[in-house]
This record gives sequence, structure tokens and C-alpha cells, in this order.
Amino acid sequence: MKTFLDCIPCIIRQTLDSARLSTSDEAVHERMLREILRNAAEMDLRRNPPEMAQWIHRRIRRYVNESDPYRQIKDRFNRMALELYPTLRKWVEESNRPMETVVRLVIAGNVIDFGVNADLTMPQVREAITHALLAPFDADVEEFFRALSDARKILYLTDNAGEIVFDRLLLRQIPAEKVTVGVRGFPVINDATLADAEEAGIAKMFKVIENGSDAPGTILADCSDAFQTQFREADLIVAKGQGNYETLNDVDKDIYFLLKAKCPVVADDLGCDVGSLVLRRSIALTVSETKA
Amino acid sequence: MKTFLDCIPCIIRQTLDSARLSTSDEAVHERMLREILRNAAEMDLRRNPPEMAQWIHRRIRRYVNESDPYRQIKDRFNRMALELYPTLRKWVEESNRPMETVVRLVIAGNVIDFGVNADLTMPQVREAITHALLAPFDADVEEFFRALSDARKILYLTDNAGEIVFDRLLLRQIPAEKVTVGVRGFPVINDATLADAEEAGIAKMFKVIENGSDAPGTILADCSDAFQTQFREADLIVAKGQGNYETLNDVDKDIYFLLKAKCPVVADDLGCDVGSLVLRRSIALTVSETKA
Repeated sequence: MKTFLDCIPCIIRQTLDSARLSTSDEAVHERMLREILRNAAEMDLRRNPPEMAQWIHRRIRRYVNESDPYRQIKDRFNRMALELYPTLRKWVEESNRPMETVVRLVIAGNVIDFGVNADLTMPQVREAITHALLAPFDADVEEFFRALSDARKILYLTDNAGEIVFDRLLLRQIPAEKVTVGVRGFPVINDATLADAEEAGIAKMFKVIENGSDAPGTILADCSDAFQTQFREADLIVAKGQGNYETLNDVDKDIYFLLKAKCPVVADDLGCDVGSLVLRRSIALTVSETKA
Repeated sequence: MKTFLDCIPCIIRQTLDSARLSTSDEAVHERMLREILRNAAEMDLRRNPPEMAQWIHRRIRRYVNESDPYRQIKDRFNRMALELYPTLRKWVEESNRPMETVVRLVIAGNVIDFGVNADLTMPQVREAITHALLAPFDADVEEFFRALSDARKILYLTDNAGEIVFDRLLLRQIPAEKVTVGVRGFPVINDATLADAEEAGIAKMFKVIENGSDAPGTILADCSDAFQTQFREADLIVAKGQGNYETLNDVDKDIYFLLKAKCPVVADDLGCDVGSLVLRRSIALTVSETKA
């Protein structure tokens, strides 16, 4: 997905949010903002939003001289999600439609996105869960589970810290030997890295692969060879979140995107309303299926 | 009020909104956006947001070669407000607290602000009216009406087209001979000019003065000598909207600001929540009163 003009004001706001989360030094906030404005003025709109965000967050980390400025936030949301987790599991077990409940909750976790909302609070996460359980959701959950069952090699691309705990609800439905969990190679915003896979209890249950990149999405060309091989060899990809959608929606691969549509540009691209729960099979494949 | 860092992403969004309202040519949208980004990167934050907006909208008007790109929108909202007006008057007449109802409705009209919301619809205006009638509002309305009654020379600074029709509810409570109505000197966004005072039926009932400026606020140094004299000689100023607040809140003059707090920066400055109804006497005077 390319960057739309509407992404620019949002990227500028995100810069400010991130600079503030990273340091309380207002001079740094202003310097960062001015630098991003100068860069955005010249930016190539064919780049996708996560590429722009990758560049911004590299600058922020350099400015604040901190390799992982969101580390505390990530720890906090991992802990909170772990506290919630037994309740979430109970809801799945008691549900009349457990598969659908799993998918709804796994999407609810995607609200823990500090790129979109830098002031996120735990009550907002709880509200998102309630919303996700009640919101309209017409995806074909059975077809999705059939695809998971039929696949031999699944690569599950996580999105954010905290959210990665929610992902366990879905991961535990898949035999561990056929799934590899992908995390970012380096910290960027509150995206999940290996440390989060460990904190979430994922790393001791599943193979985890770092993608070698610090983009808040999956820019394949920026990922390590090992990750690219894993991606190529998987016969099914599950991709969480907007960043993975923005970077993979044009890739010709069997991908299921699970996300909450949090911005108007992504919602528009998906043909849904902002706030919608999305389980969407990749268009690239849908097109080739239609041809078949 | 100076420009805060938080104003910058908002100004960038406003540029895009305005460019789109002014022309459907996407190449113009992109050129405008890039130019504003370059300018914002260098901007002096001691300038207030309406100064920045003044500069932006001059550029937009030049780009689209159109002296008043919001003319149709302004006509439309004037017409809609005129259609509503008899109902609004009836509500005031039937109210148990007519003065408070007048003030609430006059503030409700301030929602017609295309700088803040470029997609405003008439249902949203109706919703704002309902909200304004029901929202908490602890201002001292009686003191305000006493000040209006005691003043000998009142300058009433309007804000937007459409909204100016709502202002009639308050203006008709003041003897016409002691009030002058101020409008912008030239078109900017959907701010009210002389044409709107005429469409709203204000011009035939009250003296109207153009301020000589194309800023979406009242930058006194940018206003005509005649307007500055009028401002100086008035013993009471009524100033509608955020733009007038942002440009006059530091001026040492007896000013009542009436507005709906529509952005976090202004709300923060006023110490209220976004969406609040505000009737606020100028701080400059409040301070000197405290000293007395």
C-alpha cells in the first residue's frame, strides 16, 4: 500500500507522540518535528507508511540515544495482557462459538498500537475487548480455521507487545510443529520483538523467528534471508495488524490479515469503517482464485 | 496564544482539507501539502495558529486562482441557518431561562467551522445544537448580560458563515445603536465577511465593520486603522470562536469569548474538555480585577 496524502498529517502527529514518549525534552520534540516536516516535504509517496515510520523511529532512537524507548510500555502491556489471559481463555471455553470468539479477541488485542494511539490506557483495551465481542463480524471464520488445518507450514506474523499475548489464543489452536511465529528484528514503536515473545510465553511453546528489520510492518526486502526463506516456504501466512497489511497486501501469497481498522486510509483500502474487525484473505490470492 | 507543537499536524491536515475543498486536482493537493510541510519545518512558533492559517489560505487561494473558494459552502450554511432561525427563536421564547438558551445556541453555531471539520454536515450541526442545549454549562450568563447592558459601545466579532445567523439571537438582545458587528476583511476558510453579514440579515439591522484582514481570527496589527480605532473605543468586546480567542486572549481589553472548544490545545488553554461550551471573560481583565 502506498502512502496517501492523508497519511502525512498522521505521520507528523505520530512523530510528536513518539518523541514525547521517548523523552520529556521539549527541544528534542521540536527538533524532531521540524526534521520530519522537512523530510515529509520531499517524501516519495510510493513508499508505504511503515517505511516512513521506520525512518522516523530510527531518527527518534538516535536523538534520544535509546535503542528501545518503548521498552517499559511494552513490558507493562505484556503484563496486563498476561493478567487478562486466563479470563480470555475462559470466555473462549464458555463460548457457543469458540472459534469466532478466538478470532474476535485476537483482533481486539490489535488495539494495543502506540503508533495509532500513544495515550492508550488499560480501560481502553478492556473497552476494545467488549467492542470486539459485540461488534458485527461477518468473516468466514470456519474457512479460516480450515485453511489453518490444511496448511503444512504456517508463518504467524505478530504485531505489537501486549497484543502478542492475545495471539496465544489462536496459536494454541494450531499444532506447534507446523507454526513459526515472526517478530520484528529490532525495536520500533511498541512492536513485538523476541523479548516480547519471551515475556508473552510464546517463545517456549513455538519456534520464533526475528525478521531482521526495524520497520513496523513486514518489508520483505528489508528482512533477513532466513526470514525471507521462511516466508517463501510457508504455505500460509497469518499477519496481524495494520503495518503488516500495509506492507504485505500486494504480495502474491496466501495471507490472512487479522486487524482492527484503526485509520481511515486503511479502512478505505479494506472497504470497511474505521473500528471494524477485519479477517481478510489476501486480495492477490483471491484474484488468482477467481481466475481458477 | 502561540502555536503549540500539537497545532502542526492539525495545520497540515487543514491544508489538505482546504486544498480538497478548493479543487479536485490531486496534483494541486500534493504541491500544497509539500509547500506547507517545508514552511512548517521553519515556522516561528511564537506566531499564533491563525497567522499560520492566514498564510496557508493565501497560498491555497493563489494556487486555485479563486478569491473565495468556500463561497458556496458559506452560502449553503447561511441558508440552512436561516431556515433553522425561526425554530431557534421559538426555543428561546419558550425557554425558562431565555438568556442562557440564547448563549447556548450562539455557542452551538460555532460548530460551523470548516477549519476544524471540513466534512461538516447539517445533521452534525443539529446534533451540536442538541448537545449545546443539554451540555453542562456553568458560566455566569447573568453577569454577561449585565456587562452587555452596562456597556456603551460594543464590538461584536463574528466568526463563521452560518454561525453568524445564530449570532442574531444574541445581537437582538442589545440595542442596535450601541453595537458594531465585526467581520473579516477578506475571505478565509468559511469565516464570515460582509457578504455573510448581508446574507444573514445582520447588515440591515446593525453597523457592520470589515476588519481589513484575511486572518481567521483578529490579529489587531493586521487590521485596518478604522477597525483598530473601533476596537480601541469599544468598552466591551464579544468575540466568537477559537480563531478570535487564539488571537485576542492576551490582549488587555474587556472581552467575552464565546466558543465551542474544538481542539485539545485551545481546550487545554481554557482548562476545559474538548467539546465544552465556553463563555469566558478575558484573563487580562480578570487579572487586573483581582489586583484592584
